[in-house]
Amino acid sequence: MQINGLSLIGSSTGALGDSSFNAIDPSTAKEIEPPFYAASADETNKAADLAQNAFLHYSQKTGAERAAFLRAIADQIEALGDTLTQRAMAETGLPEGRIQGETGRTTGQLRLFATVAEEGSWVEARIDTALPDRQPIPKPDIRSMKRPLGPVAVFAASNFPLAFSVAGGDTASALASGCPVIVKAHSSHPGTSELVGQAILAAIAETGMPEGTFSLLHGSGRVVGSALVTHPAIQAVGFTGSTAGGTALMKLASSRPQPIPVYAEMGSVNPVFILPGAAASNGPGLASGLQVSATMGVGQFCTNPGVVLVESSKTGNAIVSSFTEEMSKAPSAIMLNPGIHSAYTGGVASRSGNEKVNTLVVNDDDGVGCPGVAAVFEVSADTFLEDESLSEEIFGPETTLVRWNTKEDLLAVAEELEGQLTATIHGTDEDLENYADLVAILERKVGRIVYNGFPTGVEVCPSMVHGGPFPATSDGRSTSVGTHAIERFIRLVAYQSSPQSLLPNELKDGNPSGIMRMVNGEYSR
Amino acid sequence: MQINGLSLIGSSTGALGDSSFNAIDPSTAKEIEPPFYAASADETNKAADLAQNAFLHYSQKTGAERAAFLRAIADQIEALGDTLTQRAMAETGLPEGRIQGETGRTTGQLRLFATVAEEGSWVEARIDTALPDRQPIPKPDIRSMKRPLGPVAVFAASNFPLAFSVAGGDTASALASGCPVIVKAHSSHPGTSELVGQAILAAIAETGMPEGTFSLLHGSGRVVGSALVTHPAIQAVGFTGSTAGGTALMKLASSRPQPIPVYAEMGSVNPVFILPGAAASNGPGLASGLQVSATMGVGQFCTNPGVVLVESSKTGNAIVSSFTEEMSKAPSAIMLNPGIHSAYTGGVASRSGNEKVNTLVVNDDDGVGCPGVAAVFEVSADTFLEDESLSEEIFGPETTLVRWNTKEDLLAVAEELEGQLTATIHGTDEDLENYADLVAILERKVGRIVYNGFPTGVEVCPSMVHGGPFPATSDGRSTSVGTHAIERFIRLVAYQSSPQSLLPNELKDGNPSGIMRMVNGEYSR
Repeated sequence: MQINGLSLIGSSTGALGDSSFNAIDPSTAKEIEPPFYAASADETNKAADLAQNAFLHYSQKTGAERAAFLRAIADQIEALGDTLTQRAMAETGLPEGRIQGETGRTTGQLRLFATVAEEGSWVEARIDTALPDRQPIPKPDIRSMKRPLGPVAVFAASNFPLAFSVAGGDTASALASGCPVIVKAHSSHPGTSELVGQAILAAIAETGMPEGTFSLLHGSGRVVGSALVTHPAIQAVGFTGSTAGGTALMKLASSRPQPIPVYAEMGSVNPVFILPGAAASNGPGLASGLQVSATMGVGQFCTNPGVVLVESSKTGNAIVSSFTEEMSKAPSAIMLNPGIHSAYTGGVASRSGNEKVNTLVVNDDDGVGCPGVAAVFEVSADTFLEDESLSEEIFGPETTLVRWNTKEDLLAVAEELEGQLTATIHGTDEDLENYADLVAILERKVGRIVYNGFPTGVEVCPSMVHGGPFPATSDGRSTSVGTHAIERFIRLVAYQSSPQSLLPNELKDGNPSGIMRMVNGEYSR
Repeated sequence: MQINGLSLIGSSTGALGDSSFNAIDPSTAKEIEPPFYAASADETNKAADLAQNAFLHYSQKTGAERAAFLRAIADQIEALGDTLTQRAMAETGLPEGRIQGETGRTTGQLRLFATVAEEGSWVEARIDTALPDRQPIPKPDIRSMKRPLGPVAVFAASNFPLAFSVAGGDTASALASGCPVIVKAHSSHPGTSELVGQAILAAIAETGMPEGTFSLLHGSGRVVGSALVTHPAIQAVGFTGSTAGGTALMKLASSRPQPIPVYAEMGSVNPVFILPGAAASNGPGLASGLQVSATMGVGQFCTNPGVVLVESSKTGNAIVSSFTEEMSKAPSAIMLNPGIHSAYTGGVASRSGNEKVNTLVVNDDDGVGCPGVAAVFEVSADTFLEDESLSEEIFGPETTLVRWNTKEDLLAVAEELEGQLTATIHGTDEDLENYADLVAILERKVGRIVYNGFPTGVEVCPSMVHGGPFPATSDGRSTSVGTHAIERFIRLVAYQSSPQSLLPNELKDGNPSGIMRMVNGEYSR
């Protein structure tokens, strides 16, 4: 499979433009061939028009047909084999095992959504049958279900070049629901994006899906991304990235003549609360687990633990001291791209320079490419509450330890937190009983509460919630990981007194799809 | 029960302010006593703070407790009896039968949501149990469900003084999900609003719900409404009213530091498509049914049929002629308030003055109060497509007949339509086969497709969808009528490796709530 550096506009490729950019290998900070050409305004419009036209046909495909398509994408991605692995490694600095694991996660997600589409109960079919003799007026037959919303624009993330990128969770869930997808490729791994895009196009050809069900655009977010989000054909946006990027998309989407929903997964400091009993019984284990979680993937995970609440006590001091020791030994590792590296270095320098902050660890880097070094800071709960900058995310292997004296301190910090993807509590049964107030506060603040574990590692399963109140996401009602994600790209449609022949299969008498439905208020298959 | 003209701020009343307004009896255009006083900025803040505090406790109530509260509200509204009926009649000009019917609809909705809250499956509980031995990493136990979002601001509608007002569908669904509600009363029926608000407060006292679970604010949308929507405690907005009002709230909500969702049900012309076979077989029945639907409630329903597509044919002409005759005999009737009356009169005059429009009926009014008179206009499909003003809603008993010659005309009109709450198709089996393209287009445009019926009359049941793409609503993913409405005021929360004692009952082992759940991907009770 060859990388051409061109956008994929339906089954055509984009033209060579006037300006081009190259991917950069973050281990050397040097450019990689070939050059990539941004989509022109005409190409963006063409992709959107094709998607609009594809929607008319793709939205009518059965769940089984969409499932076959999703499985074909997974197979085609697997068929890319080492070509994909090597290109992704070169473009991201991530090691082979991680890329292979992430490929498995990506194909696993596609196959999970295939199962959901094929099984079909996710459409939440409801039937209320007619009561022609009801007084004072007859009750008509009404049936409703979820139907796909329309073409979806997906903005790929830098930190998961596969699982949150071209064929990642947003794309898989939108395609599963019956929506065409246009991906704005992340400029940090354009070759990986093109390879996966070609795999999707091969699956479209293989399973006979309409042209325009998928397109891939290269170019800047400001130009190509804005043109895409403001195109009238686009009906929803999926995004994983920075708060600045996500909120810019929200503004664009809400100022359209027809406003559309934006599902932006942005930033989070994923607070970890270590309660006294847990600190006493498992101090060294906690310190070591935290170090693994904080440096995993060079700290470049949305669920990276950026703020850890540790008691100002003897056991708390012991945890701080072992965590500090472990972090100081963590080797520097290559960050995803020069932009992330420079933002991380700047964030660490700024927090180091804050005179209210005790700098415990800022490791030396080895000076080559984009090295991310572990950093640990310490502040009092009072300082944390006074200085808003301390609750801002520094994307990378950095952790700020917040030392608390009283339960009131701890609850005050919890209450001041903005919306978060996760919060973690380490506590014994006795701790959890004593700190029940903390649980109640966190339930209002986060998408997922983790007990006696670590926030990194987001299981892909029906119950997962990878969401949380703004600013963790643009829309805390939903999740971007797990099968609930399919519900983001739908709307409800009701059919009143419809002839059987015009009803979708999911709503027909006799339940030919065999799905779980609500009939006259009762669930049945 | 006495009407004091004051806002209800938790369990207190607002103060008398500097300025006051009176309700107006639209049958006489004269003021009714007593005067009402707008909530001050301090009172609005106090209501929001009380709601925020109430949320901490009310959100933890069980479904059964919320159900008892909702049923107590219904009982208290019924206990208002004739006091409520007479006041609502005086403030709206609606007849006794309609007010009594609407009271029944309102209490029915409250009891329906009580059943949903009590039964409990609506929270969509999902459990994925741990696999500690899974390779390469263990799978943790993860459980998730829908949890209430936070305090909700509800803007009451003018056209349903009970069912879409203080204790209407938005309030009932928000309270059912566990969210406190602050209602901005509609200035067109403030006394009715206060009576119902007092009924809710009595139910709060009776069932021991926390203060602030409900407040009622009098005042203008621009001042009190804006202050409410921009208050940080408010987490969602429900609105039924004009496009201008709804889009203003959308802008306010999206420009908050923390943007929040707005569920605004705005305008719709609810197109009716009469196909040739239906016109031939049932012309007089259609004309007469249309007249009833178009003049019901003086045309002041969101689902009123404003645009009717009739073929330019002999059978089509016959329908136009009987519809014209029936509409010309429709007596004038009192509209809800002077504002709606003047907007309707202006809309009718403007369409009459459009020289491309054939004015078939504009009845004479009897000159007293706010009389709404039936109006019928006729245009060609070409004219309708050329002149955007013809697809704008004229809220009242007005219908514009669009005459079409070819199937292409009909499909072109359908394709040009903006988002609508409903579309109706009258057709024989043969018609529906021949016009399958029309169904496919309408499915993308509307929340509900009605076959061989009329759009007015929105059944309150699990399958109902009273929604539709923008500009029919702000958020076509949801519905404001029917039990799906409860899903607007929630967010998903996941619990990872949680001790049983800290899980909500809905997620505990053994399913103590007896609800439908998804456990390891399979539905079970």
